[in-house]
Amino acid sequence: MIYSINATHDPALESWVESANAPECEFPIQNLPFGIFQRVGSPEAPRGGVAIGSQVLDVGAVARDELMEGRAWGPALACSSSELNTLMSMGPDAWSPLRARLSHLLSTRASAEDRQKLKNHLAPMSEIEMLLPARIGDYSDFYASLHHATNVGKMLRPDQPLLPNYKFVPIGYHGRSSSVVLSGTPIRRPRGQSRPDPDRPPKFGPTQSLDFELEVGFFVGSGNRMGEPIGIDKAEEHLFGICLLNDWSARDLQAWEYQPLGPFLAKSFGTTISPWIVTLEALEPFRAPAFARPAEDPAPLPYLNSPQQMAHGAFDVSLEVLLSSRAMREANVAPVELCRSNLRDLYWTPGQLLAHHASNGCNLRPGDLLGSGTVSGPATESRGSLLERTWRGTQPITLPTGESRRFLEDGDEVIFRGYCGRSGFARIGLGECRGIVESAPAP
Amino acid sequence: MIYSINATHDPALESWVESANAPECEFPIQNLPFGIFQRVGSPEAPRGGVAIGSQVLDVGAVARDELMEGRAWGPALACSSSELNTLMSMGPDAWSPLRARLSHLLSTRASAEDRQKLKNHLAPMSEIEMLLPARIGDYSDFYASLHHATNVGKMLRPDQPLLPNYKFVPIGYHGRSSSVVLSGTPIRRPRGQSRPDPDRPPKFGPTQSLDFELEVGFFVGSGNRMGEPIGIDKAEEHLFGICLLNDWSARDLQAWEYQPLGPFLAKSFGTTISPWIVTLEALEPFRAPAFARPAEDPAPLPYLNSPQQMAHGAFDVSLEVLLSSRAMREANVAPVELCRSNLRDLYWTPGQLLAHHASNGCNLRPGDLLGSGTVSGPATESRGSLLERTWRGTQPITLPTGESRRFLEDGDEVIFRGYCGRSGFARIGLGECRGIVESAPAP
Repeated sequence: MIYSINATHDPALESWVESANAPECEFPIQNLPFGIFQRVGSPEAPRGGVAIGSQVLDVGAVARDELMEGRAWGPALACSSSELNTLMSMGPDAWSPLRARLSHLLSTRASAEDRQKLKNHLAPMSEIEMLLPARIGDYSDFYASLHHATNVGKMLRPDQPLLPNYKFVPIGYHGRSSSVVLSGTPIRRPRGQSRPDPDRPPKFGPTQSLDFELEVGFFVGSGNRMGEPIGIDKAEEHLFGICLLNDWSARDLQAWEYQPLGPFLAKSFGTTISPWIVTLEALEPFRAPAFARPAEDPAPLPYLNSPQQMAHGAFDVSLEVLLSSRAMREANVAPVELCRSNLRDLYWTPGQLLAHHASNGCNLRPGDLLGSGTVSGPATESRGSLLERTWRGTQPITLPTGESRRFLEDGDEVIFRGYCGRSGFARIGLGECRGIVESAPAP
Repeated sequence: MIYSINATHDPALESWVESANAPECEFPIQNLPFGIFQRVGSPEAPRGGVAIGSQVLDVGAVARDELMEGRAWGPALACSSSELNTLMSMGPDAWSPLRARLSHLLSTRASAEDRQKLKNHLAPMSEIEMLLPARIGDYSDFYASLHHATNVGKMLRPDQPLLPNYKFVPIGYHGRSSSVVLSGTPIRRPRGQSRPDPDRPPKFGPTQSLDFELEVGFFVGSGNRMGEPIGIDKAEEHLFGICLLNDWSARDLQAWEYQPLGPFLAKSFGTTISPWIVTLEALEPFRAPAFARPAEDPAPLPYLNSPQQMAHGAFDVSLEVLLSSRAMREANVAPVELCRSNLRDLYWTPGQLLAHHASNGCNLRPGDLLGSGTVSGPATESRGSLLERTWRGTQPITLPTGESRRFLEDGDEVIFRGYCGRSGFARIGLGECRGIVESAPAP
């Protein structure tokens, strides 16, 4: 299913919340991403909200104030929870009317009376804190960038960078859900086993090659029953929305532990996501064709192939990584850009990833999180990890302070940003995903 | 920490619940495993119980009936929940007094008055159904049997069966928690990609090599904060108890998908566990030394090494696998034994697996599940999977009906059993873990 590009995307639509109308605003009325927030210092429980300009709207309170109607009422009330799982479980037939109603209420078309009521349910972002948007049952991480897989493969297997399965199987692995944390949470440098010298025994200590991976997270909306796959034509109906995701990685631990069962402790010490979930409907104007497979590449197997996915299944989302060292912050130097890439460049579409995941009957649940894998593009500056950016540390990056980076140092802050821009449409921002590296715990 | 072998293990202790005193009983008063049950046809919510003979005791109801005292009262009340996570989170200082009090109340030493009250809170197992014992946040699966790793390695890499990391790293991977189901739940044959002929393209269809893996599951009790590892000397305090676990596997899917990130859809279609969690305290008399490492093997690195673990960290638990085909059931032929092995034979102890898992600061949560990996022993008949038992299908097994098995067929029922037996101690049973293979969904 493709949503139509409807009135909620009209670039002429303005909000009576003035801050939403600034040209560079991340959260204009065309966006309306969902998250879980709590007023700082308030005894109120966390609840679901949508971002509008520099404000957050308490969606459940809007429903209880009799401002919702028809099909929008139920999903709005579901936002009263401290997790978005219930809203996610309701599917596009619930999400779409809620979005349409919120769009109307927050627009300059809303009546003066409605605006007055709504103002009671708005809070400035400066007065709230964000929490994890959902109870994440399972987190799975893919490897969907051909450029990333090829880069990593070149370092590990120069004679055969890309394994024979890559262009047939959307490669993925199970990740750790307990350590998925919200943007702003410090990440402690992990200790672990590594064997830098194969002629000596392995050692245990703080990782010497801590890295980020620039990814996008996809939240599962409605799930499927165990044993019942999801067809490729229905896959997108099960996707609620997207966020930024940093799949922190310890390369030395990974290199030593990953054979034969894949990454484990090299990843499970922390994964950071951005707080606002941008719905698939908000992304509708930014659809793009699937990766242009060279003629010699195989077509996707039928369970992953559909004309809709190949024509419109990708999304044009600009992504960037910035780094700020402790010394840079102390010297008031702005964060430096390390990478700029685009979600469109994935070899597999989000719909294909989801259909593959459920193809064996694995049950996906509302609030499950799928990671795209590192989003690297073809250019050097579009490589989405330090491993690739510094080519395994052989090409260090020099920071404005004169510091050098092969991998992350304690005190480094990694910042991801993402947005959709297209002529004739409002800019849709994903917000930020941040994390500062803390030193390893004492032995 | 090692629990002492206390009065709850006294083999002379008998229960006034007569069925618990039969010599072959799985659930004598020395066992008292925990699970979640519901009376069939009752509107009551599921709740925690302990098995005693052929009966189940409603532990929360016992507390509300004023039969608990001191430190036993809180943990008993925590069993009123429909998940054991709260009880698990309380740690051994809560589990031990609860077990001691239950042991007293169910013993022939209990007063007539107490017995009369308790009878109101007992239900025959024939009148209840069991549910998943906990909300499993994350499920991680290890690969802790050297024999299993060597057998599989011999098939895949005859020149180098065991990878260089095996004797240093307790190899594990993240599993799928959504598809962990209770004993008795049918398992649908998964479809997926495989490439039996490397000169032809891969194909998508029902797996042709469906297998079981004989494992033991370890439930995490109290957890740890993210960034704060658990020392090897404290690891066992974080283990609540054990169950049987069938890590169903699709070998053809696994062979094609697993490079470079490990097993994914070859495993995530289903994992079955037995309903009763036998506590570590009940297993205390069955402790055993860790695997006898040959002199040429490295000692565990310090973060995995402790005198206690090496001397007593393993558990002597007998395990067996039985198979019953549809034709066997129709002909009233008893299930046939496929494998008999012992948890003691793992290269790593449960405490080492848990300490390794948390060594990078990964936060474990109450109710998380760790799988041991296939428990294979040194003998042919102790190989814990069909892959090993039939040596990749080259040595098929003949069933009593004359049927032949390389891998599992539709209608096959796989049954795991486990128990601890030691002269001078009561037999401690793990119960059963069953699952019938259903045919794949229509394309």
